[in-house]
Amino acid sequence: MKITNLDFMNGSPEKKKIPDPCTMIIFGASGDLTARMLIPSLFKLYSDKLLPENFSVTGFSRKEMDSGTFRELMKKSVKEHSEEEFDETTWNKFEKNLHYFIADYKNPELYKKLLTEIELIESSNNTGGNRILYMAVPPDSIFEIVTNIGKSGLNKQVSDRSWTRIILEKPFGHDLESALKLNKNVSRCFSEKQIYRIDHYLGKESVQNILVTRFANGIFEPLWNRNYIDHIEITSSESIGIENRGGYYDCSGALRDMVQNHLLQLLGYIAMEPPSTFDSNSIRDESLKVFQSLRPVREEEVSKVVIRGQYVNSKIRGEKVIGYREEKGVAANSRTETYVALQLFIDNWRWGGVPFYIRTGKRLPTRVTEIVIHFKATPHHLFKSSKDIPDSYNMLVIRIQPDEGLLLKFAMKVPESDFKIQNVSMDFHYSDVTAESLPAAYEKLLLDCMLGDQTLFIRADAVEACWRYIQPILNAWKKDPGIVVYGYPAGTWGPECADDLIAGKEFMWRYPCKNLANDHNYCEL
Amino acid sequence: MKITNLDFMNGSPEKKKIPDPCTMIIFGASGDLTARMLIPSLFKLYSDKLLPENFSVTGFSRKEMDSGTFRELMKKSVKEHSEEEFDETTWNKFEKNLHYFIADYKNPELYKKLLTEIELIESSNNTGGNRILYMAVPPDSIFEIVTNIGKSGLNKQVSDRSWTRIILEKPFGHDLESALKLNKNVSRCFSEKQIYRIDHYLGKESVQNILVTRFANGIFEPLWNRNYIDHIEITSSESIGIENRGGYYDCSGALRDMVQNHLLQLLGYIAMEPPSTFDSNSIRDESLKVFQSLRPVREEEVSKVVIRGQYVNSKIRGEKVIGYREEKGVAANSRTETYVALQLFIDNWRWGGVPFYIRTGKRLPTRVTEIVIHFKATPHHLFKSSKDIPDSYNMLVIRIQPDEGLLLKFAMKVPESDFKIQNVSMDFHYSDVTAESLPAAYEKLLLDCMLGDQTLFIRADAVEACWRYIQPILNAWKKDPGIVVYGYPAGTWGPECADDLIAGKEFMWRYPCKNLANDHNYCEL
Repeated sequence: MKITNLDFMNGSPEKKKIPDPCTMIIFGASGDLTARMLIPSLFKLYSDKLLPENFSVTGFSRKEMDSGTFRELMKKSVKEHSEEEFDETTWNKFEKNLHYFIADYKNPELYKKLLTEIELIESSNNTGGNRILYMAVPPDSIFEIVTNIGKSGLNKQVSDRSWTRIILEKPFGHDLESALKLNKNVSRCFSEKQIYRIDHYLGKESVQNILVTRFANGIFEPLWNRNYIDHIEITSSESIGIENRGGYYDCSGALRDMVQNHLLQLLGYIAMEPPSTFDSNSIRDESLKVFQSLRPVREEEVSKVVIRGQYVNSKIRGEKVIGYREEKGVAANSRTETYVALQLFIDNWRWGGVPFYIRTGKRLPTRVTEIVIHFKATPHHLFKSSKDIPDSYNMLVIRIQPDEGLLLKFAMKVPESDFKIQNVSMDFHYSDVTAESLPAAYEKLLLDCMLGDQTLFIRADAVEACWRYIQPILNAWKKDPGIVVYGYPAGTWGPECADDLIAGKEFMWRYPCKNLANDHNYCEL
Repeated sequence: MKITNLDFMNGSPEKKKIPDPCTMIIFGASGDLTARMLIPSLFKLYSDKLLPENFSVTGFSRKEMDSGTFRELMKKSVKEHSEEEFDETTWNKFEKNLHYFIADYKNPELYKKLLTEIELIESSNNTGGNRILYMAVPPDSIFEIVTNIGKSGLNKQVSDRSWTRIILEKPFGHDLESALKLNKNVSRCFSEKQIYRIDHYLGKESVQNILVTRFANGIFEPLWNRNYIDHIEITSSESIGIENRGGYYDCSGALRDMVQNHLLQLLGYIAMEPPSTFDSNSIRDESLKVFQSLRPVREEEVSKVVIRGQYVNSKIRGEKVIGYREEKGVAANSRTETYVALQLFIDNWRWGGVPFYIRTGKRLPTRVTEIVIHFKATPHHLFKSSKDIPDSYNMLVIRIQPDEGLLLKFAMKVPESDFKIQNVSMDFHYSDVTAESLPAAYEKLLLDCMLGDQTLFIRADAVEACWRYIQPILNAWKKDPGIVVYGYPAGTWGPECADDLIAGKEFMWRYPCKNLANDHNYCEL
């Protein structure tokens, strides 16, 4: 008798793709990103034998140090930031590939020298002329660096068989105008196929899993439209405040920092049409269509459909927490939003009339990113014996972080009762099916870039379409000082009036946990 | 901030309905059913304060004993068969309602005497003339008893305000002809509104939950049709053999014993259209439509679409297990099936072309009843990079017993991989949401009968429609000795050729566990 186990799709064992030999040139190598993210990720990839044998990292920055010191610093940082036990032997092999040069990227003269250094390393490391230029620099420097790169010829392919790619870190502009300018500038020196814009959200397993959930299962897609979905929530909350980023954050705010990029990207994955093939441009074409279908917000309706907030001081578990305006680097009368909630619509056949709600904030009660699909009630309330009993709504929660997984809420019979119903749930935790921790976003994205796979990187047109949606909100806030900034006590779920966004519905936001702070300190700032 | 918990539908606390005062008259009160099922169930209802204050049980049978002995026997049996701790004080109150009379139900003269006795008890117990006549007798006696009841006037309402009901136990006939005859006979003395045909499967919480799952959730019903479902399996396996029921079973077999009643009823719930209201006739009308839509089996195709088997001796966990033909009361050359698997179709718009597979047997590896909804594969295999990787199919398993609940299988991304997929599952166990054990089927059904709710009882037309479907199979087996009876080793999943029923598909039966016995003893009997 043929009894087989269908639980695991036993394809042929996966052979991991190894990238071409290459060198990564990090601009701003003395900064935080390099130490905390890039080198630890590269070292993890190296340890997992996913890097090509011929590989090197050439960091440069104004800071004075030699390659030895750079290696020491990186070693210390890897020890500190890696979840895995540090392996000295592997590190000693790995660090031979690390190089450092002192260079002021503002000085165009130095780029030629840099090119010479790189060519030397390439020749000794046999990296075949394949180059990744990593922009780990403040956003306002990008313009200058890219121009200088263009002038020096560092943007060019070394040979017909080699490639040169550039990785850009967000923010991709500060508003629509600057984003257009940045894209235009970068595109003067690099073709779109060379440009890798990192949104680390797209590097998360759980985000990629949205596509698999939707398109590898027969049961979800038929329900994934206006006929069966009432509304969709996307929440990304952080319990921390702005940490040491006051200076940056006060010029940015939650809308720019989270919504324009990460959360609209999530929306793209949740709302896209099924792509025709699974390649980078098909997927990104479909995301783009979502962004292009976003119903423009009229400036005069901003105060109604967008709620902004700013955390004020409170007590969390008995301890005093300062308000945003008391944070270092923040203006004492700042009106920058640390919280934003908005309602949006996607004007196409699939989503016509379905409201989407996006909410994000700092100093909320917990750190969670999740998408909640609220399905419509049944068209016929067969078991509803009295008006006291609320309708049952099905809900699918896609948890992006932490505890990545799915939760499905549905109705069941209350035992012993005469067909009364209760809501119950079943869930799936990604951690249950994988022994190892999920691969970090940066590892995935760095590897994808080396492999030339742009699927999880943001295309210029998508960046612009998202800014095009965001811009009227920024305009209204700038023009109309009458639009309230709601103060919310640190440790709560943000301004109370955000509930009214979903007004008229039987629904409200899903609150993954309770408020941590007292409720009395709400105010208008 | 209004943070509410939507998890529980907090309607007004349920006020349990208490039935009218009544007396239950058990025909065949000295038998197994009374001691093992009826009295323990009634005592549980009594302990839970669900019985009316004025209530009595009048048992009768040929066996000589007095009410005192009857009460003693029942007490012993309750102690033995109840899952809960026995409460002496409650029992002492309860047993006062129990009465016993010696009477041969074959003797029409005694019915008048019986009526007098009942009237005496009714008067002293104030049960208001409401009567339930429970037929706990062998099927071949029903005909005679009902005729005698009719003659004695025991079938009549005592007054305009009282009711008389009759409960029939399966089997409801041995074939189509005898079922028609039985229904006709019973309907001479009782109207259909008085007749309660028990199929204890319908008393199970998990079976009633099929209706709630389908009709109280917005997400399942849109998928519940030929567009999204590939095929449906219904399996009911038992690990035990025929125990001491050889004599009965050898004249019956799995098709009559399980399929004609229990499993077709499950099919009715799984396949029905949404009823217009939740009342007994709407639900039963919809079940009936399913039975009436079953595509008739042509006798000449029986050997292809129905596989029958009979267990033969084997070793289970090292211990010898006898074959069916060696069981007490079974003919040495018996061709009675202890296993049957069949493919059927429901010819209507919802199910056109969707095969249903029903399978049941004795001495299979485990005791389980479950329904498996196999959804179709996605129409586009977006992530299928190679032919090695099988399609992913979604599967919903509705577990009727044991471990009542739901299991949903779906595809997820393999972490770290390039969008390869694996099947994972999430599940819901009824036991997780209810502290108490689920109410037993008989308690529910006895209470429903007292409350006059016929929803979970089988109507005459449904019995007949099911027999109408079954009859050609019985005919073919009777006429054509060439239709094989497949021997299967006790402790295995039945005849190997049952797999061929699903032939041509990428699927096979779901096997909830492995074979217990060796595989070598398959044969044709």
